Amino acid sequence: MGNCCEILGNFFCGQKNTNIRISLPAVCFVWQIAMVILFGVFIRYDEESDVRKWLEHKHSENITSDIENDFYFRYPSFQDVHVMIFVGFGFLMTFLKRYSFGGVGFNFMIASFGLQWALLMQGWFHSLDPATGKIYIGVESLINADFCCAGSLIAYGALLGKVSPVQMMVVTLFGITLFAVEEFIILTLLHCRDAGGSMVIHAFGGYYGLAISWVLYRPNLHQSKRLNGSVYHSDVFAMIGTLFLWMFWPSFNSAITDHGDGQPRAAINTYIALASSVITTIGISSMSQKKGKLDMVHIQNATLAGGVAMGTAAEFMITPYGSLIVGFCCGIISTFGYLFVTPFLEKYLKLQDTCGIHNLHAVPGMLGGFIGAIVAAAATVEVYGEEGLIRVFDFEGEFADRSVGTQGGFQAAGTCVAVAFGVVGGAAVGLILRLPIWGDPADDNCYDDEVYWEVPEDEETIPPVLEYNNHMIHKHQDISESNFSVEQS
Amino acid sequence: MGNCCEILGNFFCGQKNTNIRISLPAVCFVWQIAMVILFGVFIRYDEESDVRKWLEHKHSENITSDIENDFYFRYPSFQDVHVMIFVGFGFLMTFLKRYSFGGVGFNFMIASFGLQWALLMQGWFHSLDPATGKIYIGVESLINADFCCAGSLIAYGALLGKVSPVQMMVVTLFGITLFAVEEFIILTLLHCRDAGGSMVIHAFGGYYGLAISWVLYRPNLHQSKRLNGSVYHSDVFAMIGTLFLWMFWPSFNSAITDHGDGQPRAAINTYIALASSVITTIGISSMSQKKGKLDMVHIQNATLAGGVAMGTAAEFMITPYGSLIVGFCCGIISTFGYLFVTPFLEKYLKLQDTCGIHNLHAVPGMLGGFIGAIVAAAATVEVYGEEGLIRVFDFEGEFADRSVGTQGGFQAAGTCVAVAFGVVGGAAVGLILRLPIWGDPADDNCYDDEVYWEVPEDEETIPPVLEYNNHMIHKHQDISESNFSVEQS
Amino acid sequence: MGNCCEILGNFFCGQKNTNIRISLPAVCFVWQIAMVILFGVFIRYDEESDVRKWLEHKHSENITSDIENDFYFRYPSFQDVHVMIFVGFGFLMTFLKRYSFGGVGFNFMIASFGLQWALLMQGWFHSLDPATGKIYIGVESLINADFCCAGSLIAYGALLGKVSPVQMMVVTLFGITLFAVEEFIILTLLHCRDAGGSMVIHAFGGYYGLAISWVLYRPNLHQSKRLNGSVYHSDVFAMIGTLFLWMFWPSFNSAITDHGDGQPRAAINTYIALASSVITTIGISSMSQKKGKLDMVHIQNATLAGGVAMGTAAEFMITPYGSLIVGFCCGIISTFGYLFVTPFLEKYLKLQDTCGIHNLHAVPGMLGGFIGAIVAAAATVEVYGEEGLIRVFDFEGEFADRSVGTQGGFQAAGTCVAVAFGVVGGAAVGLILRLPIWGDPADDNCYDDEVYWEVPEDEETIPPVLEYNNHMIHKHQDISESNFSVEQS
Repeated sequence: MGNCCEILGNFFCGQKNTNIRISLPAVCFVWQIAMVILFGVFIRYDEESDVRKWLEHKHSENITSDIENDFYFRYPSFQDVHVMIFVGFGFLMTFLKRYSFGGVGFNFMIASFGLQWALLMQGWFHSLDPATGKIYIGVESLINADFCCAGSLIAYGALLGKVSPVQMMVVTLFGITLFAVEEFIILTLLHCRDAGGSMVIHAFGGYYGLAISWVLYRPNLHQSKRLNGSVYHSDVFAMIGTLFLWMFWPSFNSAITDHGDGQPRAAINTYIALASSVITTIGISSMSQKKGKLDMVHIQNATLAGGVAMGTAAEFMITPYGSLIVGFCCGIISTFGYLFVTPFLEKYLKLQDTCGIHNLHAVPGMLGGFIGAIVAAAATVEVYGEEGLIRVFDFEGEFADRSVGTQGGFQAAGTCVAVAFGVVGGAAVGLILRLPIWGDPADDNCYDDEVYWEVPEDEETIPPVLEYNNHMIHKHQDISESNFSVEQS
Repeated sequence: MGNCCEILGNFFCGQKNTNIRISLPAVCFVWQIAMVILFGVFIRYDEESDVRKWLEHKHSENITSDIENDFYFRYPSFQDVHVMIFVGFGFLMTFLKRYSFGGVGFNFMIASFGLQWALLMQGWFHSLDPATGKIYIGVESLINADFCCAGSLIAYGALLGKVSPVQMMVVTLFGITLFAVEEFIILTLLHCRDAGGSMVIHAFGGYYGLAISWVLYRPNLHQSKRLNGSVYHSDVFAMIGTLFLWMFWPSFNSAITDHGDGQPRAAINTYIALASSVITTIGISSMSQKKGKLDMVHIQNATLAGGVAMGTAAEFMITPYGSLIVGFCCGIISTFGYLFVTPFLEKYLKLQDTCGIHNLHAVPGMLGGFIGAIVAAAATVEVYGEEGLIRVFDFEGEFADRSVGTQGGFQAAGTCVAVAFGVVGGAAVGLILRLPIWGDPADDNCYDDEVYWEVPEDEETIPPVLEYNNHMIHKHQDISESNFSVEQS
Repeated sequence: MGNCCEILGNFFCGQKNTNIRISLPAVCFVWQIAMVILFGVFIRYDEESDVRKWLEHKHSENITSDIENDFYFRYPSFQDVHVMIFVGFGFLMTFLKRYSFGGVGFNFMIASFGLQWALLMQGWFHSLDPATGKIYIGVESLINADFCCAGSLIAYGALLGKVSPVQMMVVTLFGITLFAVEEFIILTLLHCRDAGGSMVIHAFGGYYGLAISWVLYRPNLHQSKRLNGSVYHSDVFAMIGTLFLWMFWPSFNSAITDHGDGQPRAAINTYIALASSVITTIGISSMSQKKGKLDMVHIQNATLAGGVAMGTAAEFMITPYGSLIVGFCCGIISTFGYLFVTPFLEKYLKLQDTCGIHNLHAVPGMLGGFIGAIVAAAATVEVYGEEGLIRVFDFEGEFADRSVGTQGGFQAAGTCVAVAFGVVGGAAVGLILRLPIWGDPADDNCYDDEVYWEVPEDEETIPPVLEYNNHMIHKHQDISESNFSVEQS
């Protein structure tokens, strides 16, 4: 921030101004009104959720039962993904001792804001009907919108406690936009498969957040060190997030895969990889600590790495033991990341990564992209069948002649595109965020809910008892009651 | 309570008696035995869950696949609704610093008791087979029973911390009964559509709770003021409730809508409206506080107003931007309610509303009813198609000739019926609850789990350390250990 | 532990060694590598999740729609069961004031480890294809693997806080193995029906844990008494576990029942029984305490007894009022167990049961087995229909001539087998666990996360305020700051 400060002069004299009473409402209302207008112009129901079109569709396609509606294939998975986005990511970020409101609350804000913009951006790129100029949305659009938000929420993990909500609105706005563009390049132009988003969600989101955090480096962040840690119950809250992410990750990776065999295969592969991650995470965590004690940071995060790394390959015929190996390796890599890489990045690369998204999303996501490339390139007619290869890799239309080797190459290229978009986009957004107008906290004021939230005063718990005690104390020692304003949480 | 006190004389002399050792078990056992008898007389499996009838039904209807069983259309939504009722409502009410047991525990009791009575009451009104005199239940009956409980749980929100569990049993018993009657009038006699229950659940439940609370006005409630607030971690617990309600509201509004297009449409509309509510709630909350700080009360509650207000219109063709506008407005209205209306009601109308259900359920529910009326009245053949209009508004049998304009009028009338039932029924039940036999707490004893729960003593956390400290303190200061019985949560 | 100590001599001189830095990683890595190899040799996708086989299967069976894939019948229930295993059991065990990390964290470890071994063990016993020597897994295999873990997690409930994670790995390894064998005997050889596992999961798991705990009796456990209790917020955390178990139990009991009528019937029966349990639990709990106060231990546990006891009978035509009666009785029995039997067992039978699994799983599970036997024996052609009897009890192949009376006898025999396996297997495993190599804690060190976890230091919450206070205190009283290291969460 030093340079910026010198250049912009008196913007920064004295305490930073964290007053967002004008900027936050302004952003909220301007954007929400814009959403109303854009939804009015562009967004309509698709043929599965519009009563007239569904009845016509049933007649024309000779569909005999309403159960054929895509809703019944995808809605349970959608709700699982929805829980991951709001409770999973939200509670995972409650682990700090005094930033739980910000963790779960701003997560809520980012996702609610982002999913609206995602419906538009993804609609323009993927489902704009050129005949009518409208975007037709259904249940799958909702899943994709939630996925799109995940990228920005991952980025929030690196920035947690160091940015203002207005800054997060900016991060989200650009994050969703970049996401839609890279997703279009990777899925449509390069024709990659990435149902669980190792590339488009995790690698992109991870590097996007890391690049922003790198640009926003705070040299004096140690002044907030006292708040950059957990307390006992905040770690238990964070386990709610971890477990809901972990349990529903099979739904995440299978939510938009092929009907029929695709969904169970993706779910099974993810389930197996995640179980394996847990065991190797525990092994490494125990090995690294005095007396073999486990570290909650590892259990909360590295156990999920198997799910991230299966994002691309889960829908392929990676085999159950292949999934087990992926989870095995990623649990180890991710835990090592928390032990050695995050401290290294902070010390030598000036990269402050609050939640360690480098180890949970960036690296496993990138690995997941390459694993997908290898599994795709290794696909054979023997395993998939002729029809199966076409079905799984969507070798139709202009891609009918693509070989699995070529597909593998494009999958690898797609991973690189995702990382490049994350790094370049994040650096650019980081520069925008260095403008001194966003109300971010000072270096000695980070990780503190007091800055953006009305925090309840926790003076007393069972007042009658404490009153008595205080009374006793007053009598004997003449200490003002406030000396005993101990916490009860 | 003044009048009542004078009339009933020495019932009230001295401290209130909160002993419920006889009354609560008596109510539980009498009612549970009554349930066994009534279930024995009336309740049977329907043709989708009875093995003999299902096999006959499949043969007679030429159903080829078990997937046509209604279970597969509705069970995922049922489980989401179930989570909303028990975890959503339950944890939303844990926000008070020392009433979390009562919030989540009595919620559990009310819903478990209520759903049994609801199966009977709704069965008698809606699915009693006159030929056999039996009620046939299936998965949709379970969803409706959960919905029915929601009305009484909303009412509990207004009464939280001020009533005894025995009183809540009475509130639930009458609440379910009134619900079944008003639902019969609104859905069957007036032939309204109200799949997500803006009218029958939220408007009714909200005004029912408010009327009870108004009759039970406690002039000296300020004596419990020290406990009428949150602490840091209780606010985080409440966010669990908020998020599960928010995430699963699309399932709530789509759980009993039409198979096929009806369920995805209701889910999409609700999803969009809720996202919009979050953003406007944050805008108003920030605008209203010094330095733009957000208030957890608003985030926990007003963000849900969009879901309440879409309860009726969600299954109609309200369009995505229509949903966005509904959420937009209701987020604002609800937050303003928390800022200005709740304090006003308490001060001038003597209405103490612990959770602010006026702003989250009563007003958005009533608005939702009128929004539904407008959207119904504005329906056109062009948008719905001939067949679609009949499908969505159920213009069949004796209602085959009803126009959409007439339907809109009946929808509006239904809203008024729901409000009237809530107000009148609540006032009557409130009078019953003023009898001094229910074991409710005194005005200086509200919002305190100590009254009805064995609360663990929180003397020490890591005893060895504290013991050492206490030892030190003893030596130097001669203060008994209990003086330091500080809280640890 | 006394005998063992004498025999093994100097192993035990002085403080117990709880260092697991070598043993835990060793177990994790050896086992995880073994899993990779065994999965590689044995496990393959079944025909519903293998793209080639599914396409062939569709062609050969003339299946027109992908919705016929078993995934769409079972996946929503699978995810509910998954939540019960990881969040339900996990959070139910967070109730201790300083063992929440161990409760939810080791639960996570046990289940992740166990489900892999369960896929193999259950595969070998139930779905090994003799032609290929492979195990073919699908969504139902995942549900069964989760079920299998439940047995070991129940056993963990009895041992909570008194064993090391390495010991729990051993308990799980043998627990899964024993489970697969007894399940094979009960379901395949005796041809019992036990969809929700009253016998194979709850009775087995309960007695398995109790037998282990009995062998591991700690005479001086009272030395850890200060930590064997809850604090306010840990009880609220435990309610998360209770509620997710309670809400999703209908999915647990219906997850692997027959397609079509079987799943809704099992869900309805369980839903009704659970509601009834809650009310009678509250009645007895209130009746047993001074002033009728409720005890959180009962609400957290006994409310679930109805679900346990319906594990076998839920898929039968037990009738709704039959379910209500089962829940009614089991709520009472389970609460009485917590009030009288657990203290009795501890005092006179030297059986220390941390979570009271005797009352929640062992007894209701055994009762559930016998209830299933009675309901099976009472089945009639009139109620089930000819075809229905065959469908529900699977009277096919070599069992085509079995009568319902005989079936009832075999169901009862199956219950005894489950209990016998639990008791004998548990005693044997307990003896293994008495070897002094597992790193278990000393008697005065139980129920303490400090032993196996890096626990955050909770010295201060809002440091500026406390610093000020401490400063004041220093000035006036010359007490070192650490005296006030009071807890904050």
